[in-house]
Amino acid sequence: MPPGPSVAAPPQIALFADLYELRMAHAYHALGMRDEAVFSLFVRRLPPTRNYLLACGVEDLLDTLEALRFGPDSLDYVRSLGEFPEAFLDWLAGFRFSGTVHAVPEGTPVFAEEPLLEVVAPIAEAQMIETLAMNMVGLQTLLASKASRVVAAAAGRPVVDFGSRRAQGIDAAVAGARAFHVAGVAATSNTLAGARYGIPVAGTMAHSFVQAFDSEADAFRAFARLHPQTILLVDTYDTAEGVRRVVALARELGEAFRIRGVRLDSGDLLALSREARAILDAAGLRQVQVFASGGLDEERIAALLEAGAPIDAFGVGTEMSVSGDAPALDLAYKLTSYAGIGRTKLSAGKRILPGRKQVFRRMEDGLAVGDIIARDEEHLASRPLLRPAMQQGRRLYARPSLGEARACAAAELAALPARLRALHPADPPYPVTISTALAAEERAVRARVTAAGQ
Amino acid sequence: MPPGPSVAAPPQIALFADLYELRMAHAYHALGMRDEAVFSLFVRRLPPTRNYLLACGVEDLLDTLEALRFGPDSLDYVRSLGEFPEAFLDWLAGFRFSGTVHAVPEGTPVFAEEPLLEVVAPIAEAQMIETLAMNMVGLQTLLASKASRVVAAAAGRPVVDFGSRRAQGIDAAVAGARAFHVAGVAATSNTLAGARYGIPVAGTMAHSFVQAFDSEADAFRAFARLHPQTILLVDTYDTAEGVRRVVALARELGEAFRIRGVRLDSGDLLALSREARAILDAAGLRQVQVFASGGLDEERIAALLEAGAPIDAFGVGTEMSVSGDAPALDLAYKLTSYAGIGRTKLSAGKRILPGRKQVFRRMEDGLAVGDIIARDEEHLASRPLLRPAMQQGRRLYARPSLGEARACAAAELAALPARLRALHPADPPYPVTISTALAAEERAVRARVTAAGQ
Repeated sequence: MPPGPSVAAPPQIALFADLYELRMAHAYHALGMRDEAVFSLFVRRLPPTRNYLLACGVEDLLDTLEALRFGPDSLDYVRSLGEFPEAFLDWLAGFRFSGTVHAVPEGTPVFAEEPLLEVVAPIAEAQMIETLAMNMVGLQTLLASKASRVVAAAAGRPVVDFGSRRAQGIDAAVAGARAFHVAGVAATSNTLAGARYGIPVAGTMAHSFVQAFDSEADAFRAFARLHPQTILLVDTYDTAEGVRRVVALARELGEAFRIRGVRLDSGDLLALSREARAILDAAGLRQVQVFASGGLDEERIAALLEAGAPIDAFGVGTEMSVSGDAPALDLAYKLTSYAGIGRTKLSAGKRILPGRKQVFRRMEDGLAVGDIIARDEEHLASRPLLRPAMQQGRRLYARPSLGEARACAAAELAALPARLRALHPADPPYPVTISTALAAEERAVRARVTAAGQ
Repeated sequence: MPPGPSVAAPPQIALFADLYELRMAHAYHALGMRDEAVFSLFVRRLPPTRNYLLACGVEDLLDTLEALRFGPDSLDYVRSLGEFPEAFLDWLAGFRFSGTVHAVPEGTPVFAEEPLLEVVAPIAEAQMIETLAMNMVGLQTLLASKASRVVAAAAGRPVVDFGSRRAQGIDAAVAGARAFHVAGVAATSNTLAGARYGIPVAGTMAHSFVQAFDSEADAFRAFARLHPQTILLVDTYDTAEGVRRVVALARELGEAFRIRGVRLDSGDLLALSREARAILDAAGLRQVQVFASGGLDEERIAALLEAGAPIDAFGVGTEMSVSGDAPALDLAYKLTSYAGIGRTKLSAGKRILPGRKQVFRRMEDGLAVGDIIARDEEHLASRPLLRPAMQQGRRLYARPSLGEARACAAAELAALPARLRALHPADPPYPVTISTALAAEERAVRARVTAAGQ
């Protein structure tokens, strides 16, 4: 099923806005302020446990922006608020996002203060999409960033997304599965994510299945008959006994035995994986893999593998699905230019780099060695990350396949210095500097608005 | 706009399942296992920073279950997986949830191991809805539980949900706004949540609005003309200067001045709120309120108020929207009975109380003093929490209004011992015991399955 504009957008998605956006858009409309604004989407600071973020979610946002309309129900709701004149409702009825978007390709590692995307549009339009853009790009970037750590920890072993039940909502589970796949997760358990995005789906069996039978052996036999190449969950009662039952089933089925693995979901996964491996090997079942799940995150996976746990694949749920150690990004969507004039604010701890910008990534021998945030018109001798993605409200290229974003992420992550891909904080962190021209522009704009604020 | 089955359910919601649920349902179908199963939805352990959880999300789940169908697109997808026979696809095509659901009313405080809901249905049906039930009830319970702490910390001052931009997805923002309102949050900034659920919406202005003008005074004047009763954001450049501009605007507008408040969004909120209050009071603007936002959670709000910050209302975003200190619940949906026989498992640290159950809340002088988890057929002299909500797949009552759930939450929270409503861990925690009959049943079932597992 090909993805399309409906991939991520529920009905009335145009109302997915904060009331203040409608009020400001109304003010701009009423005041005739139709000049072009530049808004920049960036993360102020990386969470302490992230050495980089993996940009994701831009393609779903672009599809949503292309299709964004206020339908009759949405207009009725806005009217019912009793504070907006009909002239503004007419403007909403005709609303089409007509702006330009520059964005970094999905799967690009980004750092603090670097724009993931820049929106250039009449100010009311650019303001209206604030919450939508932040939420959609923020969610997938948050989750792809977490997942890339889990994938790194698994060191080549497949990771399967088991997180849908504990993800923060249906959208988080489905869009999250997409972000995970971009970041290198092999498959998802969620069939809606499989249907929407074409992500491979995977699954084993639940404890309930074993519980519903009079004996574990009966449950294994019944499931293996219908799903011969499945993975059997062996920890419902006694893990070692469960593994021995798989061995017994192999003897019973002989040539017909096709079980791919056993799953451990509780207890001491290091000890149990060794015990399971030993039992399977002793029975000549070297091809039967050991699959582990249950409360895993990148730290636990790394610790298990460092201790030599003979685990072939991991099912990772909750911690990856909610980015448990860093459940939110300090994401901002800020006005940096209006009517051709650079803008900033002076609020404590909340820097805004003015104007249109570009991020240049300096490469040496195929390795990223540092970024420079520059003014958009600068031409530095290194790789620009922001690319035109949308013009006059239309995409400039066909939606790339998920595989392309995944390949981009893999290549870009491989080009990062190894210390950034480690789980502990990179020392030194990745260097990001501001170009001389941008620094000068920032000083000039701050001086101007300091005067305006006094 | 009245809520209905479409409130929370995106297209193809029936596919919001884990692949293993389809595989197990297929197995049950193929094996002719059609007996009744009981599944219980409960939280194994409360997060260390929660003294109770506030049950929420059940009504959205019930609406979704009533309408749950596998449409042609969903069936095509399942067929495309190449592992399910047409007979099972026919079963999916005719799928209607036909079960019984008992649930605690939304807004009920619940504790570890207490069922939030019990599902009784032919085992394949009950299994198919596992991921959906966990996700929907889990999300809103997670967020309502967090929000009730924020509301308690604000001690009667209004709290407004500002979290949509950083919530984990669109569903989390919209369903989250609902959960927040049930927990006592006054309003949401999100207009889609307002439209879907009838939640009051609120909003102020963004820094971008101030930035877009040549001077802060111009921005305030323009906004006040169009939205006279608004709250002006005063920290874009210099907070005290911003407040003085509001005073100047009051002098300029005279009788026409209707501004309700000033918003502080950065810096030292204690010092700035005092300064703002002093400036406003000195100008005779006692009616102009001080509204605070920016990185707030229950701990910061409590600290500000304890220090005497003259803040009248709070805008709370990120930390509440992602339940930052506890972003997931240890939620489980477990088989407790099949074909009339109690079921459990023996996996380490993962207790399942067998059979159908009831939770009785012992009340003394209007105060909840302890809960007893009992067998469903027991009749204890205290208040049962689980009530019939759905039978044969149909709701047993009309969807209650959001106001009813909110009133229930307020009353139930007021009936908790005061130590549970404090932000720090309750000492002693709320007592929850297992009835003698349930304990005996648990021993019997564990003895039986221990034999089955050996």
